[in-house]
Amino acid sequence: MVKVGIIMGSDSDLPVMQDAAKVMEQFGVEYEISVISAHRTPKAMYEYAEAAANRGLKVIIAGAGGAAHLPGMTAAITTLPVIGVPIKTRALSGVDSLYSIVQMPAGIPVATVAINAGKNAGLLAVQMLAAFDTELAKKISDFRLSMKQEVEEKAEKLSSIGYAEYLAEKE
Amino acid sequence: MVKVGIIMGSDSDLPVMQDAAKVMEQFGVEYEISVISAHRTPKAMYEYAEAAANRGLKVIIAGAGGAAHLPGMTAAITTLPVIGVPIKTRALSGVDSLYSIVQMPAGIPVATVAINAGKNAGLLAVQMLAAFDTELAKKISDFRLSMKQEVEEKAEKLSSIGYAEYLAEKE
Amino acid sequence: MVKVGIIMGSDSDLPVMQDAAKVMEQFGVEYEISVISAHRTPKAMYEYAEAAANRGLKVIIAGAGGAAHLPGMTAAITTLPVIGVPIKTRALSGVDSLYSIVQMPAGIPVATVAINAGKNAGLLAVQMLAAFDTELAKKISDFRLSMKQEVEEKAEKLSSIGYAEYLAEKE
Amino acid sequence: MVKVGIIMGSDSDLPVMQDAAKVMEQFGVEYEISVISAHRTPKAMYEYAEAAANRGLKVIIAGAGGAAHLPGMTAAITTLPVIGVPIKTRALSGVDSLYSIVQMPAGIPVATVAINAGKNAGLLAVQMLAAFDTELAKKISDFRLSMKQEVEEKAEKLSSIGYAEYLAEKE
Amino acid sequence: MVKVGIIMGSDSDLPVMQDAAKVMEQFGVEYEISVISAHRTPKAMYEYAEAAANRGLKVIIAGAGGAAHLPGMTAAITTLPVIGVPIKTRALSGVDSLYSIVQMPAGIPVATVAINAGKNAGLLAVQMLAAFDTELAKKISDFRLSMKQEVEEKAEKLSSIGYAEYLAEKE
Amino acid sequence: MVKVGIIMGSDSDLPVMQDAAKVMEQFGVEYEISVISAHRTPKAMYEYAEAAANRGLKVIIAGAGGAAHLPGMTAAITTLPVIGVPIKTRALSGVDSLYSIVQMPAGIPVATVAINAGKNAGLLAVQMLAAFDTELAKKISDFRLSMKQEVEEKAEKLSSIGYAEYLAEKE
Amino acid sequence: MVKVGIIMGSDSDLPVMQDAAKVMEQFGVEYEISVISAHRTPKAMYEYAEAAANRGLKVIIAGAGGAAHLPGMTAAITTLPVIGVPIKTRALSGVDSLYSIVQMPAGIPVATVAINAGKNAGLLAVQMLAAFDTELAKKISDFRLSMKQEVEEKAEKLSSIGYAEYLAEKE
Amino acid sequence: MVKVGIIMGSDSDLPVMQDAAKVMEQFGVEYEISVISAHRTPKAMYEYAEAAANRGLKVIIAGAGGAAHLPGMTAAITTLPVIGVPIKTRALSGVDSLYSIVQMPAGIPVATVAINAGKNAGLLAVQMLAAFDTELAKKISDFRLSMKQEVEEKAEKLSSIGYAEYLAEKE
Repeated sequence: MVKVGIIMGSDSDLPVMQDAAKVMEQFGVEYEISVISAHRTPKAMYEYAEAAANRGLKVIIAGAGGAAHLPGMTAAITTLPVIGVPIKTRALSGVDSLYSIVQMPAGIPVATVAINAGKNAGLLAVQMLAAFDTELAKKISDFRLSMKQEVEEKAEKLSSIGYAEYLAEKE
Repeated sequence: MVKVGIIMGSDSDLPVMQDAAKVMEQFGVEYEISVISAHRTPKAMYEYAEAAANRGLKVIIAGAGGAAHLPGMTAAITTLPVIGVPIKTRALSGVDSLYSIVQMPAGIPVATVAINAGKNAGLLAVQMLAAFDTELAKKISDFRLSMKQEVEEKAEKLSSIGYAEYLAEKE
Repeated sequence: MVKVGIIMGSDSDLPVMQDAAKVMEQFGVEYEISVISAHRTPKAMYEYAEAAANRGLKVIIAGAGGAAHLPGMTAAITTLPVIGVPIKTRALSGVDSLYSIVQMPAGIPVATVAINAGKNAGLLAVQMLAAFDTELAKKISDFRLSMKQEVEEKAEKLSSIGYAEYLAEKE
Repeated sequence: MVKVGIIMGSDSDLPVMQDAAKVMEQFGVEYEISVISAHRTPKAMYEYAEAAANRGLKVIIAGAGGAAHLPGMTAAITTLPVIGVPIKTRALSGVDSLYSIVQMPAGIPVATVAINAGKNAGLLAVQMLAAFDTELAKKISDFRLSMKQEVEEKAEKLSSIGYAEYLAEKE
Repeated sequence: MVKVGIIMGSDSDLPVMQDAAKVMEQFGVEYEISVISAHRTPKAMYEYAEAAANRGLKVIIAGAGGAAHLPGMTAAITTLPVIGVPIKTRALSGVDSLYSIVQMPAGIPVATVAINAGKNAGLLAVQMLAAFDTELAKKISDFRLSMKQEVEEKAEKLSSIGYAEYLAEKE
Repeated sequence: MVKVGIIMGSDSDLPVMQDAAKVMEQFGVEYEISVISAHRTPKAMYEYAEAAANRGLKVIIAGAGGAAHLPGMTAAITTLPVIGVPIKTRALSGVDSLYSIVQMPAGIPVATVAINAGKNAGLLAVQMLAAFDTELAKKISDFRLSMKQEVEEKAEKLSSIGYAEYLAEKE
Repeated sequence: MVKVGIIMGSDSDLPVMQDAAKVMEQFGVEYEISVISAHRTPKAMYEYAEAAANRGLKVIIAGAGGAAHLPGMTAAITTLPVIGVPIKTRALSGVDSLYSIVQMPAGIPVATVAINAGKNAGLLAVQMLAAFDTELAKKISDFRLSMKQEVEEKAEKLSSIGYAEYLAEKE
Repeated sequence: MVKVGIIMGSDSDLPVMQDAAKVMEQFGVEYEISVISAHRTPKAMYEYAEAAANRGLKVIIAGAGGAAHLPGMTAAITTLPVIGVPIKTRALSGVDSLYSIVQMPAGIPVATVAINAGKNAGLLAVQMLAAFDTELAKKISDFRLSMKQEVEEKAEKLSSIGYAEYLAEKE
């Protein structure tokens, strides 16, 4: 059963939001992904948010840019936790998206992640599920371990070949 | 018939939004004023915005603070022009409100005025009506004239009594 | 008769402001477009703004960047509603333009849209006219419908082919 | 069993963070509340975060101000979801806290809420639990309903007595 | 003959702008002071700026807040140097005023001083005059010397009585 | 005799500061141009600023980026008016330069122009001189007239060929 | 022998800078404290900075607000490490001070601490000395321990009496 | 013996942080360089910071971007002075990094340098050492002298060939 719904205000957000989908695949979590616009398809948004919990979803990830209303409006309609991804914008670099998503009024929170952080939105959703799923929690621990090892390998390589060669190899 | 609808996300916005209502009274424009929250009463917002044009409204003024979704969501549902008033907030002084209101995506504009500018929202609404109502246009000209005279009187007073006495009198 | 005047402070603003003109053509609204600088042609600006209402204009769209005085000064001289388009700037990304346009003093509002939002300025002007023109209002409803359908088609496509192929096709 | 851990970097954050505790009491969720400083008690922080999941916690709420490292460091050590509350600061109004909490690197998300939004942090935690607890989900729906009714009552009152009397009564 | 014109957009700017007038009196420079609003008295502004050079003025000081158009518009009409004073605003602390004044387009400069720096605007005007007036230049040197001595006296006092007593005395 | 000194903190500022020099040539004002660093050649800066007035300079133009101390320190040492040009920076786009230059303490003003506005710095210097030189004032009037004509020609062209062709020609 | 020099641009900075002095007293480090203004006493600043190392100083702490040039100019003249304290300002809350101090060009660093962080400037100076003084290093460890215990006591108290009583006691 | 430890949160910071290493080589200071992540290798960070003083390090340079916790957490664990380098970020240009590093709470300072200022971090570390090492202090004086001469040569060249040729040669 689909546990995580990933929605975005425009298909121009997809390069960022696909990272959330990839996390779902990496952790074996069923998900759905769609384009729903708070401003251009307000009814569809309303219906999606209203039905989500009954359809078995446990968390919704919503990405939007500029006057980014999708995460907050979705959160206003569902009782599920909603994770908001502020999309970087051309003029204001996503500060507008960030403020529009994170500064929600008392009563309706949105779990906001960093600008363009589709991957972290996915990981946060998985962690919410994993709090009630020891197998998934184990996978997160393993993922953390692999990140740790990756850093350690880089650290070792840097100390063995020096920064100059390290940078030369990266180019 | 009511021409202008004034709505706000919270009654804490009323000290600002009453200035819009006062403009309506000053110019003899029928209006209505209400509290409608995008996040706490999303259905009421939807219904209000959807019915507005048929009820004869010509313009909607919407004030909201923080992740201020009311103006943009209202604009998404009605085809009437929507004027957005960013309410000053405690932490971010209304920059969050301003960005959430003004940075709307292509397709759905909000006519944004200055932070806490309830009065200017009212005047802008009147000017929209006045473009099609010469009597109202005359009233705006008169209002402009009275503002001009007020400045001129201050200028005269300042030049006649000097800045020190002028400031002393104001205290 | 020309209903909408589109002016801009510099011809470097034209790539943005042409989007307002295109909206006029799309909706069949007569318009005029010109370059008028508050700082380099202040008299021309004064004369343009002063004559606008008598010439039958119903709304003025003014775009400007940096210390963007054109929209506010135009608004100070005409009683018509003035829509301001903050043009993105090199150093400050248009935050300077936005503040210079939106933060007008009590008495003289400017209906400000998003940074570089020439299209939304055009749509807002059309909506102001449409509040008094049912045919035009119908066209906006149709435009909204077409936006809605466009989003729905994208949503369907995304759910049918998946994000990977969707993104691959866009490239 | 304690489900939610509320921690803060300094007891000066308590006036904000108590709002999260009050939500727990309102919704009947067992919680604990403590002061743990990333900078002054780094070991205690490490131990708290490492033990949290095994102790049965499902979510951690962490509030901090300025260079606010507590939420992010806690998130780095536990696999539980961590909700970060940026505390308003004297010089930078909490923008520093917000950026320090929300802009986490890929791999370690923090679910960030608005500046000083202790209440919303609590509600978000409850919503995470409620996704797996229908009784709790019901309570959230009821809470939403009561918020809706509160707005409706205010709207009715405003329309019946007018803004002037409404504001007079509030004073 | 009046050498320096001090104008401001509103008499609420007078507490700041009087500092410029006081500098004129301190240095014995003839000046005039008035309220002229770019938005409410655009014609008066135009006439003032156009006549200034012929009337013998050598420099104009203009203070304004928010969408602060007075300094830039005055500069567009006169060829005299115009000094702009950004007035602190309630919501944006004068960042709006600063950007509206300093970010002038190529061709029309405004000599911008710090937010609320009426005194420095006055001093800058005097320095412009003093470049062509050795007596005035001597007065500025003396003023600089007195500032230097004031700092030195404070430094001596601080080192003789210590910071605790120094602060106690100041209270 | 050299009337205007143009200095900059680094030769990387020269692409911007040459615009000030070009203005001097255009208006026939004798000038000098040099690289002087507040941080790397503080003594040279001190000596330059101290000697400037005696050498006959009437105004100094100083450009600097980042923690831009050159304009303010020069202003602290000379009694001549100092024009500051905030240079755009990589990380903060020149907001750092702007604040470091414009926010001078009471007693020592810097006449600040827009970010990267080397040309306007030059024009402001010429206007300071022109206040005491009718021939130069005439040249500025002519320059203003030529700017006005340039705008008018563009306006005419735009209205005769339309925006589409206008933009096509510019490419 | 005096090891640490504490200087500030104005005696209005003393309420903040005294915290640095108190740290010196707490750790038994000899220090001196004075008012030296980059803008009003540039020669005194030059002489102070030039002589500092020969007089045996090991580190200089410099506080300044607005266009805060004192730390950077001092750093440009001495080879000692200079710690900069950005003082909070009225209009820009110290963001101007912060940028003016921290954004130094390559070649001349300033060790910047938080806005108004006189205490941390003192501690940083002590830590620089303590890297070469095991006794002083021990004192810092003890200080850290006392901070840790203070947090732990607060944590214990909070968990024993609850947040309500805790807050009631603090009032 | 290694005196300076250079660490960074990610090997993507290496292009900036290598500049600190190069300074060490230029001044003949033994150093080590490594990748240590506060979030992905918190234990390694803890152990590194705890052991640093005993291993003979005198100062640690830590670079990090976004929610940059590495410098502050390292500073919380060691008593050595820690220099923080805010790394420029894609969305927020390093303002997030700067605030996360510089705005440390009372008790735990981080000596913050400019955004991406790896070189200045290195120089600051050398200056801290040089306060106790006259030979090293001599090298810094020589380095300062060479910077001064470089500026003087550029100034001479500029005044001899003019700005046009100077710029032409640089291209």
